[in-house]
Amino acid sequence: MKRTTYAGLVNEDYLNQEVCLKGWVQKRRNLGNLIFIDLRDIEGIVQLVFSQEFSEDALKVAESLRSEYVIEVQGKVVLRNENAINPNMKTGKVEVEVKDVKVLNAAKTTPFDISDNTNASDETRLQYRYLDLRRPEMQRSLMIRNRITQSVHSYLDENHFLDIETPYLTRSTPEGARDYLVPSRVYPGHFYALPQSPQLFKQLLMGAGYDRYYQIARCFRDEDLRGDRQPEFTQIDIETSFMTAEEIREMTEGLLKRVMKDTLNIELTNPIPQITWQEAMDRFGSDKPDIRFGMELKDLSEVVNGIGFKVFDSTLENGGQVKSITVPGGAESYSRKGIEEKQEYIKRFGAKGLAWVKVTEEGLTGPIAKFLTAKTDEILAATDAKAGDLILFVADKSKVVADSLGYLRVAIAKEQNMINKDEFAFVWVVDWPLFEYSEEFERFIAAHHPFTMPNEEDIELLTTNPHKAHAQSYDIVLNGYELGGGSIRIHRRDIQEKMFQALGFTKEKAEEQFGWFMEALDYGFPPHGGLALGLDRFAMLLAKKDNIREVIAFPKNSKASEPLTKAPSTVSQKQLEELYLNTEIPEDK
Amino acid sequence: MKRTTYAGLVNEDYLNQEVCLKGWVQKRRNLGNLIFIDLRDIEGIVQLVFSQEFSEDALKVAESLRSEYVIEVQGKVVLRNENAINPNMKTGKVEVEVKDVKVLNAAKTTPFDISDNTNASDETRLQYRYLDLRRPEMQRSLMIRNRITQSVHSYLDENHFLDIETPYLTRSTPEGARDYLVPSRVYPGHFYALPQSPQLFKQLLMGAGYDRYYQIARCFRDEDLRGDRQPEFTQIDIETSFMTAEEIREMTEGLLKRVMKDTLNIELTNPIPQITWQEAMDRFGSDKPDIRFGMELKDLSEVVNGIGFKVFDSTLENGGQVKSITVPGGAESYSRKGIEEKQEYIKRFGAKGLAWVKVTEEGLTGPIAKFLTAKTDEILAATDAKAGDLILFVADKSKVVADSLGYLRVAIAKEQNMINKDEFAFVWVVDWPLFEYSEEFERFIAAHHPFTMPNEEDIELLTTNPHKAHAQSYDIVLNGYELGGGSIRIHRRDIQEKMFQALGFTKEKAEEQFGWFMEALDYGFPPHGGLALGLDRFAMLLAKKDNIREVIAFPKNSKASEPLTKAPSTVSQKQLEELYLNTEIPEDK
Repeated sequence: MKRTTYAGLVNEDYLNQEVCLKGWVQKRRNLGNLIFIDLRDIEGIVQLVFSQEFSEDALKVAESLRSEYVIEVQGKVVLRNENAINPNMKTGKVEVEVKDVKVLNAAKTTPFDISDNTNASDETRLQYRYLDLRRPEMQRSLMIRNRITQSVHSYLDENHFLDIETPYLTRSTPEGARDYLVPSRVYPGHFYALPQSPQLFKQLLMGAGYDRYYQIARCFRDEDLRGDRQPEFTQIDIETSFMTAEEIREMTEGLLKRVMKDTLNIELTNPIPQITWQEAMDRFGSDKPDIRFGMELKDLSEVVNGIGFKVFDSTLENGGQVKSITVPGGAESYSRKGIEEKQEYIKRFGAKGLAWVKVTEEGLTGPIAKFLTAKTDEILAATDAKAGDLILFVADKSKVVADSLGYLRVAIAKEQNMINKDEFAFVWVVDWPLFEYSEEFERFIAAHHPFTMPNEEDIELLTTNPHKAHAQSYDIVLNGYELGGGSIRIHRRDIQEKMFQALGFTKEKAEEQFGWFMEALDYGFPPHGGLALGLDRFAMLLAKKDNIREVIAFPKNSKASEPLTKAPSTVSQKQLEELYLNTEIPEDK
Repeated sequence: MKRTTYAGLVNEDYLNQEVCLKGWVQKRRNLGNLIFIDLRDIEGIVQLVFSQEFSEDALKVAESLRSEYVIEVQGKVVLRNENAINPNMKTGKVEVEVKDVKVLNAAKTTPFDISDNTNASDETRLQYRYLDLRRPEMQRSLMIRNRITQSVHSYLDENHFLDIETPYLTRSTPEGARDYLVPSRVYPGHFYALPQSPQLFKQLLMGAGYDRYYQIARCFRDEDLRGDRQPEFTQIDIETSFMTAEEIREMTEGLLKRVMKDTLNIELTNPIPQITWQEAMDRFGSDKPDIRFGMELKDLSEVVNGIGFKVFDSTLENGGQVKSITVPGGAESYSRKGIEEKQEYIKRFGAKGLAWVKVTEEGLTGPIAKFLTAKTDEILAATDAKAGDLILFVADKSKVVADSLGYLRVAIAKEQNMINKDEFAFVWVVDWPLFEYSEEFERFIAAHHPFTMPNEEDIELLTTNPHKAHAQSYDIVLNGYELGGGSIRIHRRDIQEKMFQALGFTKEKAEEQFGWFMEALDYGFPPHGGLALGLDRFAMLLAKKDNIREVIAFPKNSKASEPLTKAPSTVSQKQLEELYLNTEIPEDK
């Protein structure tokens, strides 16, 4: 029979009607000569009642039903007894008196309960992902993700963006992260690469006159995994012609506003605040500041200059800085031991130590208080500290100071519950440096990518002092996560050539790798720019999860494998031969 | 300055207004002291006028402008002179008197003109795809594709389908076509495979209770290419739980109706006709019949039985059949030589010959007329032929007859302009055999795939006489193309096991390859089914193109390479080493 409605949608509108429902047995309770079954489907749960009074046959079947059996029932919707009403359920006022029941499929006992409170390990959850995905919180998360997707399509369609697909089998470009390769069967020894992003293709579409492009695109990076990284991830990829950075940000704000409204019914108050990269580093010690709370970094370099504390003095003499954060009420919350743990942690950023004082009604206390006491008033004024607060200092090169205090600011805010978890705080970070120094490569690399346009007035710096140049680029940050970023791109060959030169490319290397793209710039390429938003991260934040695996139906585990299907796997010799490949496995693997 | 509107949208609404436009120089005409420029953008073309009267500076710049320069202009919209009005242009009543012009980028002479009439080769078009994509017909095609995509999202969202992404890095399953492989860096000697379709993942989502899933999914098959095949293609992938095949077809019809309306403003008259696979083969000689025209196959086996024509007689004695098509007016259109060319062509289907008669007012003529004359009336009745028609006969095994006449029917209809190219004729082909014999593998294989549910009454045939079983499957055919197909799937382990057995899998092999999936069926898997539509093909048909390359922004060529970026390419030794791979290239490659 055809389903009348979803189990989770049965309510008083169906009173005294015969309905047909289909779904899963969530649980069964035998109450003497009555059997109650919670029937679950994608919309929720409704209570079924089996009794001799309604159908002896159905009652008999009900006795055999176990959790996760799939059943079809027909019955009458009735009001529950007054004392059985459950105000926490959408369907809590009604129940269904079952006249007919059919088992559509049986179920073995599941390895873990289908409920939000699961203690199954991550690995078990992935191995039985089809069961894990039945849990209401997973369904809610994937529904939020779907709602974001739908919202993006409808907003961008209304705004005349064209959804255009770009290839997944592309050419390997050794710049940037490691590519996933796909051996070619037609061209022995040749490989496609899976795209790290559709960057050059979307720029080509602008060159082709498409004016406004978008795509919800899968991207691939063969890098070691972290909590919010997966081998494949999804990007809301946007590119436009003839728009300024400001116009692109406005358009994006419209999109974000729509998504927040459609997804969580939250009205974003525009405009989204905008701070420069430098200000973000100065105030928050981070290029992706979480602005839901204060505890900003304060520069004490001038105040503490010459106070006689050797660590501070020598740092300042060597061109470093002394900065602090003030932990409200931290004097009590943090013991010396607690602070030492923090000090231990920030060594990974290169910090040599963490100085601190506590503020009391009587003044400053703690190991270095004696050096600071003379300047108590100035310090309290500069740090906004008051009695009961803890002031943490880091003295070092600006990057170490920013990384250390930026980390501490967030870690302490979490520990001290200073963050309103219902708040969604977006912020634009603008005016980025064009280049950043890479410790890994021991040279300057593009802070975003080599196609980013410098500020108009910095174009000439490309040939004179490139590392001083700033870019027409912008990141959108949400609650301390980089949600996305973009830029105005280079549309002129001469600037693109200078950019590659500044990145250390020889003319030949630039030509070999990107000659085909620079040729395109010769044929009437329009000014253009865009951005990309991380869909996984966006969904994770809106679903209030802390790992993108929670908003991906079939993610990889932390070792890039998929425990359900057991991918990757070995393949047949024939498959390798067709691709002209040999595997060469070292003995220790 | 900010763009006021698109060039292609300037009309009388803007009369006497100052506008700012940005776009490409389509062409320039110098008329004495006037210069006319057609300015092109994504919306179309508008005429710009430069004159000393409006701005001497602008006129000077205009003299330097060449085709495909990117410019920004400001000027006043005015009515054209009566005699200069172009009724074929949306903007044909107006022109823009330019006061200011700025060159945003210059352009070299393009290797071919940016116009619909291009004589550039396919390879040149792909190499300069960013120029090819500027041509209005390419832009129109990609816009149609975008419109289909948008239409699908909005219809399925309204109908409570969830867009859920499934992995692109999956496990290789040697059943079916050849997989593209992706070597793993973490697991030496192991490979991911790019999915040929999200089949098992979408079924798992049904097992996970998601009820209605869809995804516009990229699929990958490493097969030799044909006109409507690409290494990667896109599928509108749909799956539902608890719905019958009939209900799924109804839902799909709603989708197709919406797409036709949104895309080409065509009202589809539901319901879409439905014929069985057997009827399609009998009447059209094809499982994807083009029903826009008649010329159906007629079975003459009984009529011609025993007439003394050896070819027919021996065919019928051996269990074959004699069938015909009637070409209206074909007596004149086809010479003996023309018919012999056709005969030559159908040899590839195994046909040994093509018999024919022409119908005149006096009766039948042609080489085999003497055998048929005695039965003229019966033959004319059976073939619906009249004077002036040509009747073509093929006598052979049913498959050869169907393939040959099915091909001739379509080829001749095209030659004779019997097809209304503005018609979109959908038809459902239902009740497919569950298995088909593969000449390549010399065994029966799944006609659709191994997860297709047999008809209820045929389930027992799986163990007794599997190749007689029919499936709960359906194809949707448009204008002779398989637009998509689907089925009710197997949701019970016992049936799935029998299916693998019928396909010749040992128990061990089935367990090794699909054990993980069959285990999922043990935990309360609901009845489910769905279908997939080929987006590339759909777009190709609605754009009235004859190759899917025309509706893909960056397709591969017929050798699976991409002439613009030159993918696939060689990669560095370091990349190969990280993947534990050696390439072994035979000397003749």
